[in-house]
Amino acid sequence: MSLYEASVPQMKKTLENLDRWIELGVAHAKNKSFEPDVLLQSRLAPDQWPLVRQIQSACDAAKFAAARLSGKEAPKHPDEEKTVAEIRQRITSTVQYLGSFGEKDFADASNRNIDLPFLEGNTILGKDYLNEMALPNFYFHVVTSYAILRHDGVQVGKRDFIGSLKLQEKS
Amino acid sequence: MSLYEASVPQMKKTLENLDRWIELGVAHAKNKSFEPDVLLQSRLAPDQWPLVRQIQSACDAAKFAAARLSGKEAPKHPDEEKTVAEIRQRITSTVQYLGSFGEKDFADASNRNIDLPFLEGNTILGKDYLNEMALPNFYFHVVTSYAILRHDGVQVGKRDFIGSLKLQEKS
Repeated sequence: MSLYEASVPQMKKTLENLDRWIELGVAHAKNKSFEPDVLLQSRLAPDQWPLVRQIQSACDAAKFAAARLSGKEAPKHPDEEKTVAEIRQRITSTVQYLGSFGEKDFADASNRNIDLPFLEGNTILGKDYLNEMALPNFYFHVVTSYAILRHDGVQVGKRDFIGSLKLQEKS
Repeated sequence: MSLYEASVPQMKKTLENLDRWIELGVAHAKNKSFEPDVLLQSRLAPDQWPLVRQIQSACDAAKFAAARLSGKEAPKHPDEEKTVAEIRQRITSTVQYLGSFGEKDFADASNRNIDLPFLEGNTILGKDYLNEMALPNFYFHVVTSYAILRHDGVQVGKRDFIGSLKLQEKS
Protein backbone atom coordinates (compact mmCIF):
# COMPACT_ATOMS: atom_id res chain seq x y z
CA MET A 1 0.00 0.00 0.00
CA SER A 2 1.36 3.42 -0.89
CA LEU A 3 1.36 6.27 1.59
CA TYR A 4 -0.79 8.17 -0.89
CA GLU A 5 -3.46 5.44 -0.79
CA ALA A 6 -3.28 5.44 3.02
CA SER A 7 -3.84 9.17 3.36
CA VAL A 8 -5.09 11.61 0.69
CA PRO A 9 -8.24 9.90 -0.69
CA GLN A 10 -9.53 8.97 2.78
CA MET A 11 -8.77 12.39 4.31
CA LYS A 12 -10.42 14.10 1.36
CA LYS A 13 -13.56 11.98 1.62
CA THR A 14 -13.71 12.41 5.40
CA LEU A 15 -13.52 16.22 5.10
CA GLU A 16 -16.37 16.02 2.59
CA ASN A 17 -18.29 13.95 5.17
CA LEU A 18 -17.52 16.63 7.80
CA ASP A 19 -18.95 19.27 5.48
CA ARG A 20 -22.14 17.21 5.31
CA TRP A 21 -22.35 17.08 9.15
CA ILE A 22 -22.19 20.87 9.19
CA GLU A 23 -25.11 20.94 6.74
CA LEU A 24 -27.01 18.71 9.16
CA GLY A 25 -26.04 21.13 11.95
CA VAL A 26 -27.49 24.04 10.00
CA ALA A 27 -30.71 22.09 9.47
CA HIS A 28 -30.84 21.37 13.22
CA ALA A 29 -30.30 25.07 14.04
CA LYS A 30 -33.14 26.09 11.69
CA ASN A 31 -35.40 23.45 13.20
CA LYS A 32 -34.63 24.71 16.72
CA SER A 33 -34.68 28.39 15.64
CA PHE A 34 -31.14 29.28 16.67
CA GLU A 35 -28.33 30.91 14.71
CA PRO A 36 -26.19 28.14 13.06
CA ASP A 37 -22.94 30.03 13.77
CA VAL A 38 -23.54 29.39 17.49
CA LEU A 39 -22.53 25.75 16.86
CA LEU A 40 -19.01 26.87 15.93
CA GLN A 41 -18.37 28.07 19.50
CA SER A 42 -19.71 24.89 21.07
CA ARG A 43 -17.33 22.62 23.01
CA LEU A 44 -17.40 19.55 25.27
CA ALA A 45 -15.37 21.06 28.14
CA PRO A 46 -14.55 24.67 29.07
CA ASP A 47 -10.82 24.10 28.55
CA GLN A 48 -11.27 22.34 25.19
CA TRP A 49 -11.19 23.94 21.74
CA PRO A 50 -14.58 24.86 20.25
CA LEU A 51 -15.94 23.32 17.05
CA VAL A 52 -14.52 25.99 14.75
CA ARG A 53 -10.97 25.27 15.94
CA GLN A 54 -11.51 21.51 15.77
CA ILE A 55 -12.46 21.90 12.10
CA GLN A 56 -9.51 24.21 11.40
CA SER A 57 -7.24 21.62 13.02
CA ALA A 58 -8.72 18.73 11.04
CA CYS A 59 -8.14 20.72 7.83
CA ASP A 60 -4.58 21.51 8.89
CA ALA A 61 -3.82 17.91 9.84
CA ALA A 62 -4.81 16.81 6.33
CA LYS A 63 -3.06 19.72 4.59
CA PHE A 64 0.22 19.27 6.46
CA ALA A 65 0.19 15.49 6.03
CA ALA A 66 -0.03 15.87 2.23
CA ALA A 67 2.52 18.71 2.13
CA ARG A 68 5.11 17.11 4.42
CA LEU A 69 4.91 13.64 2.90
CA SER A 70 5.43 15.06 -0.58
CA GLY A 71 8.08 17.60 0.45
CA LYS A 72 5.98 20.61 -0.56
CA GLU A 73 5.17 23.80 1.28
CA ALA A 74 1.60 23.95 2.56
CA PRO A 75 -0.61 26.96 1.78
CA LYS A 76 -1.29 29.26 4.73
CA HIS A 77 -4.69 29.60 6.40
CA PRO A 78 -4.89 32.29 9.10
CA ASP A 79 -7.62 30.62 11.23
CA GLU A 80 -9.98 33.58 11.08
CA GLU A 81 -13.22 31.75 10.25
CA LYS A 82 -16.21 32.93 12.29
CA THR A 83 -19.22 31.75 10.31
CA VAL A 84 -20.54 28.48 8.92
CA ALA A 85 -20.01 29.83 5.40
CA GLU A 86 -16.37 30.64 6.17
CA ILE A 87 -15.54 27.31 7.80
CA ARG A 88 -17.18 25.43 4.94
CA GLN A 89 -14.99 27.44 2.55
CA ARG A 90 -11.95 26.34 4.60
CA ILE A 91 -13.00 22.72 4.14
CA THR A 92 -13.57 23.23 0.40
CA SER A 93 -10.15 24.86 0.06
CA THR A 94 -8.47 21.94 1.87
CA VAL A 95 -10.36 19.36 -0.19
CA GLN A 96 -9.20 21.13 -3.38
CA TYR A 97 -5.62 21.18 -2.11
CA LEU A 98 -5.74 17.44 -1.36
CA GLY A 99 -7.16 16.90 -4.84
CA SER A 100 -4.01 18.45 -6.34
CA PHE A 101 -1.90 15.46 -5.15
CA GLY A 102 -1.36 12.14 -6.88
CA GLU A 103 0.57 8.91 -6.32
CA LYS A 104 3.75 10.31 -7.89
CA ASP A 105 3.98 13.16 -5.36
CA PHE A 106 4.32 10.50 -2.65
CA ALA A 107 7.02 8.43 -4.39
CA ASP A 108 9.61 9.12 -1.65
CA ALA A 109 7.16 9.58 1.22
CA SER A 110 7.70 6.34 3.13
CA ASN A 111 11.34 6.87 4.04
CA ARG A 112 11.40 10.66 3.91
CA ASN A 113 12.55 12.26 7.17
CA ILE A 114 9.86 14.58 8.50
CA ASP A 115 11.31 17.42 10.59
CA LEU A 116 9.01 19.13 13.06
CA PRO A 117 10.12 21.94 15.39
CA PHE A 118 8.79 20.29 18.55
CA LEU A 119 10.70 17.04 17.90
CA GLU A 120 13.87 19.04 18.68
CA GLY A 121 16.97 16.94 17.92
CA ASN A 122 14.86 14.14 16.41
CA THR A 123 13.10 13.39 13.17
CA ILE A 124 10.44 10.86 12.16
CA LEU A 125 10.16 8.62 9.11
CA GLY A 126 7.34 9.44 6.70
CA LYS A 127 5.43 6.22 7.30
CA ASP A 128 5.70 6.58 11.10
CA TYR A 129 4.65 10.22 10.83
CA LEU A 130 1.54 9.16 8.90
CA ASN A 131 0.57 6.29 11.22
CA GLU A 132 1.54 7.77 14.56
CA MET A 133 0.88 11.50 14.10
CA ALA A 134 -0.92 12.65 10.97
CA LEU A 135 -3.77 10.12 10.83
CA PRO A 136 -4.45 9.96 14.62
CA ASN A 137 -4.33 13.76 14.80
CA PHE A 138 -6.66 14.08 11.80
CA TYR A 139 -9.19 11.64 13.24
CA PHE A 140 -8.87 13.23 16.66
CA HIS A 141 -10.16 16.57 15.38
CA VAL A 142 -12.69 15.05 12.97
CA VAL A 143 -14.26 12.79 15.59
CA THR A 144 -14.21 15.56 18.21
CA SER A 145 -16.08 17.77 15.70
CA TYR A 146 -18.59 14.96 15.22
CA ALA A 147 -18.88 14.51 19.02
CA ILE A 148 -19.55 18.22 19.58
CA LEU A 149 -22.31 18.21 16.96
CA ARG A 150 -23.72 14.95 18.36
CA HIS A 151 -23.70 16.42 21.87
CA ASP A 152 -25.56 19.48 20.54
CA GLY A 153 -28.35 17.26 19.23
CA VAL A 154 -27.45 17.32 15.53
CA GLN A 155 -28.81 14.23 13.73
CA VAL A 156 -25.48 12.75 12.62
CA GLY A 157 -25.00 9.00 12.65
CA LYS A 158 -22.27 6.44 12.06
CA ARG A 159 -23.04 6.19 8.34
CA ASP A 160 -22.48 9.92 7.98
CA PHE A 161 -19.12 9.39 9.65
CA ILE A 162 -17.98 6.50 7.44
CA GLY A 163 -19.42 7.81 4.16
CA SER A 164 -19.02 6.03 0.84
CA LEU A 165 -16.94 2.86 0.41
CA LYS A 166 -14.91 1.48 -2.51
CA LEU A 167 -16.85 -1.77 -2.80
CA GLN A 168 -16.27 -4.53 -5.36
CA GLU A 169 -18.96 -6.73 -6.79
CA LYS A 170 -18.60 -10.32 -5.68
CA SER A 171 -17.53 -12.48 -8.60
CA MET B 1 4.20 0.39 3.68
CA SER B 2 2.72 -2.93 4.71
CA LEU B 3 -0.83 -3.24 6.00
CA TYR B 4 0.67 -4.66 9.20
CA GLU B 5 2.72 -1.48 9.74
CA ALA B 6 -0.37 0.62 9.02
CA SER B 7 -2.52 -1.15 11.57
CA VAL B 8 -1.41 -3.48 14.38
CA PRO B 9 1.41 -1.54 16.13
CA GLN B 10 -0.54 1.74 16.11
CA MET B 11 -3.82 0.15 17.26
CA LYS B 12 -1.97 -1.71 20.02
CA LYS B 13 -0.25 1.45 21.27
CA THR B 14 -3.48 3.44 21.10
CA LEU B 15 -5.36 0.85 23.19
CA GLU B 16 -2.53 1.07 25.73
CA ASN B 17 -3.00 4.86 25.69
CA LEU B 18 -6.74 4.35 26.24
CA ASP B 19 -5.97 2.18 29.26
CA ARG B 20 -3.92 5.08 30.65
CA TRP B 21 -6.86 7.49 30.19
CA ILE B 22 -9.00 5.12 32.25
CA GLU B 23 -6.35 5.24 34.99
CA LEU B 24 -6.62 9.04 34.87
CA GLY B 25 -10.41 8.66 35.08
CA VAL B 26 -10.08 6.54 38.22
CA ALA B 27 -7.78 9.18 39.75
CA HIS B 28 -10.36 11.86 38.89
CA ALA B 29 -13.15 9.81 40.48
CA LYS B 30 -11.14 9.35 43.68
CA ASN B 31 -10.34 13.07 43.76
CA LYS B 32 -14.04 13.92 43.36
CA SER B 33 -15.17 11.09 45.67
CA PHE B 34 -17.36 9.23 43.21
CA GLU B 35 -17.37 5.58 42.19
CA PRO B 36 -15.08 5.14 39.10
CA ASP B 37 -17.47 2.63 37.48
CA VAL B 38 -19.96 5.51 37.06
CA LEU B 39 -17.74 6.79 34.23
CA LEU B 40 -18.48 3.66 32.20
CA GLN B 41 -22.16 4.65 31.87
CA SER B 42 -21.35 8.23 30.86
CA ARG B 43 -22.25 9.44 27.36
CA LEU B 44 -22.38 12.66 25.30
CA ALA B 45 -25.99 12.31 24.12
CA PRO B 46 -28.90 10.21 25.44
CA ASP B 47 -29.10 8.21 22.18
CA GLN B 48 -25.35 7.58 22.02
CA TRP B 49 -23.48 4.56 23.37
CA PRO B 50 -21.95 4.98 26.85
CA LEU B 51 -18.20 4.81 27.50
CA VAL B 52 -18.17 1.08 28.24
CA ARG B 53 -19.61 0.28 24.81
CA GLN B 54 -17.30 2.74 23.09
CA ILE B 55 -14.33 0.90 24.61
CA GLN B 56 -15.76 -2.52 23.69
CA SER B 57 -16.22 -1.24 20.12
CA ALA B 58 -12.68 0.17 19.93
CA CYS B 59 -11.33 -3.21 21.08
CA ASP B 60 -13.49 -5.03 18.54
CA ALA B 61 -12.48 -2.69 15.70
CA ALA B 62 -8.82 -3.54 16.37
CA LYS B 63 -9.45 -7.25 16.90
CA PHE B 64 -11.52 -7.69 13.74
CA ALA B 65 -9.10 -5.63 11.63
CA ALA B 66 -6.23 -7.94 12.58
CA ALA B 67 -8.31 -11.10 12.21
CA ARG B 68 -9.93 -10.21 8.88
CA LEU B 69 -6.77 -8.87 7.24
CA SER B 70 -4.88 -12.04 8.15
CA GLY B 71 -7.74 -14.43 7.36
CA LYS B 72 -8.04 -15.70 10.93
CA GLU B 73 -11.04 -16.13 13.17
CA ALA B 74 -11.27 -13.53 15.92
CA PRO B 75 -11.73 -14.60 19.55
CA LYS B 76 -15.19 -13.92 21.01
CA HIS B 77 -15.86 -11.31 23.69
CA PRO B 78 -19.44 -11.28 25.02
CA ASP B 79 -19.58 -7.53 25.94
CA GLU B 80 -20.48 -8.14 29.57
CA GLU B 81 -18.01 -5.74 31.21
CA LYS B 82 -19.56 -3.65 33.98
CA THR B 83 -16.56 -2.44 36.02
CA VAL B 84 -13.35 -0.54 35.37
CA ALA B 85 -11.37 -3.68 36.23
CA GLU B 86 -13.35 -5.71 33.68
CA ILE B 87 -13.06 -3.20 30.84
CA ARG B 88 -9.33 -2.83 31.49
CA GLN B 89 -9.06 -6.61 31.23
CA ARG B 90 -10.85 -6.44 27.87
CA ILE B 91 -8.26 -3.93 26.67
CA THR B 92 -5.40 -6.10 27.97
CA SER B 93 -6.84 -9.14 26.24
CA THR B 94 -7.14 -7.24 22.93
CA VAL B 95 -3.61 -5.84 23.24
CA GLN B 96 -2.31 -9.38 23.80
CA TYR B 97 -4.24 -10.65 20.77
CA LEU B 98 -2.78 -7.86 18.59
CA GLY B 99 0.66 -8.79 19.93
CA SER B 100 0.24 -12.29 18.52
CA PHE B 101 0.38 -10.94 14.93
CA GLY B 102 3.44 -10.24 12.82
CA GLU B 103 4.28 -9.00 9.32
CA LYS B 104 4.00 -12.51 7.84
CA ASP B 105 0.35 -12.87 8.91
CA PHE B 106 -0.45 -9.89 6.71
CA ALA B 107 1.39 -11.12 3.61
CA ASP B 108 -1.82 -11.35 1.53
CA ALA B 109 -3.76 -8.62 3.32
CA SER B 110 -3.67 -5.83 0.73
CA ASN B 111 -5.60 -7.62 -2.02
CA ARG B 112 -7.56 -10.01 0.17
CA ASN B 113 -11.33 -9.72 -0.31
CA ILE B 114 -12.99 -8.90 2.99
CA ASP B 115 -16.56 -10.21 3.19
CA LEU B 116 -18.90 -8.57 5.67
CA PRO B 117 -22.56 -9.53 6.09
CA PHE B 118 -23.86 -5.94 5.74
CA LEU B 119 -22.07 -5.41 2.40
CA GLU B 120 -24.56 -7.89 0.92
CA GLY B 121 -23.58 -8.74 -2.67
CA ASN B 122 -20.34 -6.77 -2.40
CA THR B 123 -16.88 -7.24 -0.96
CA ILE B 124 -14.05 -4.84 -0.16
CA LEU B 125 -10.31 -5.09 -0.79
CA GLY B 126 -8.12 -5.44 2.31
CA LYS B 127 -6.39 -2.10 1.88
CA ASP B 128 -9.69 -0.28 1.31
CA TYR B 129 -11.20 -2.07 4.31
CA LEU B 130 -8.31 -0.86 6.47
CA ASN B 131 -8.35 2.77 5.24
CA GLU B 132 -12.08 3.27 4.84
CA MET B 133 -13.58 1.11 7.59
CA ALA B 134 -11.24 -0.43 10.16
CA LEU B 135 -9.06 2.59 11.00
CA PRO B 136 -11.83 5.24 10.90
CA ASN B 137 -14.07 2.99 12.99
CA PHE B 138 -11.27 2.31 15.48
CA TYR B 139 -10.46 6.01 15.88
CA PHE B 140 -14.17 6.85 16.05
CA HIS B 141 -14.62 4.78 19.20
CA VAL B 142 -11.23 5.67 20.71
CA VAL B 143 -11.72 9.42 20.27
CA THR B 144 -15.34 9.23 21.46
CA SER B 145 -14.06 7.45 24.60
CA TYR B 146 -11.54 10.24 25.05
CA ALA B 147 -14.24 12.89 24.48
CA ILE B 148 -16.56 11.33 27.08
CA LEU B 149 -13.76 11.30 29.67
CA ARG B 150 -12.77 14.87 28.71
CA HIS B 151 -16.38 16.00 29.02
CA ASP B 152 -16.50 14.40 32.50
CA GLY B 153 -13.54 16.50 33.63
CA VAL B 154 -10.84 13.82 33.48
CA GLN B 155 -7.38 15.36 33.04
CA VAL B 156 -6.52 13.83 29.68
CA GLY B 157 -4.62 15.87 27.10
CA LYS B 158 -3.44 15.60 23.52
CA ARG B 159 -0.12 14.01 24.54
CA ASP B 160 -2.01 11.22 26.29
CA PHE B 161 -3.89 10.68 23.05
CA ILE B 162 -0.83 10.53 20.78
CA GLY B 163 1.45 8.62 23.19
CA SER B 164 4.99 7.56 22.31
CA LEU B 165 6.53 8.09 18.85
CA LYS B 166 9.12 6.12 16.85
CA LEU B 167 11.60 8.99 16.56
CA GLN B 168 15.01 8.85 14.89
CA GLU B 169 18.05 10.84 15.99
CA LYS B 170 19.02 13.46 13.45
CA SER B 171 22.28 12.49 11.81
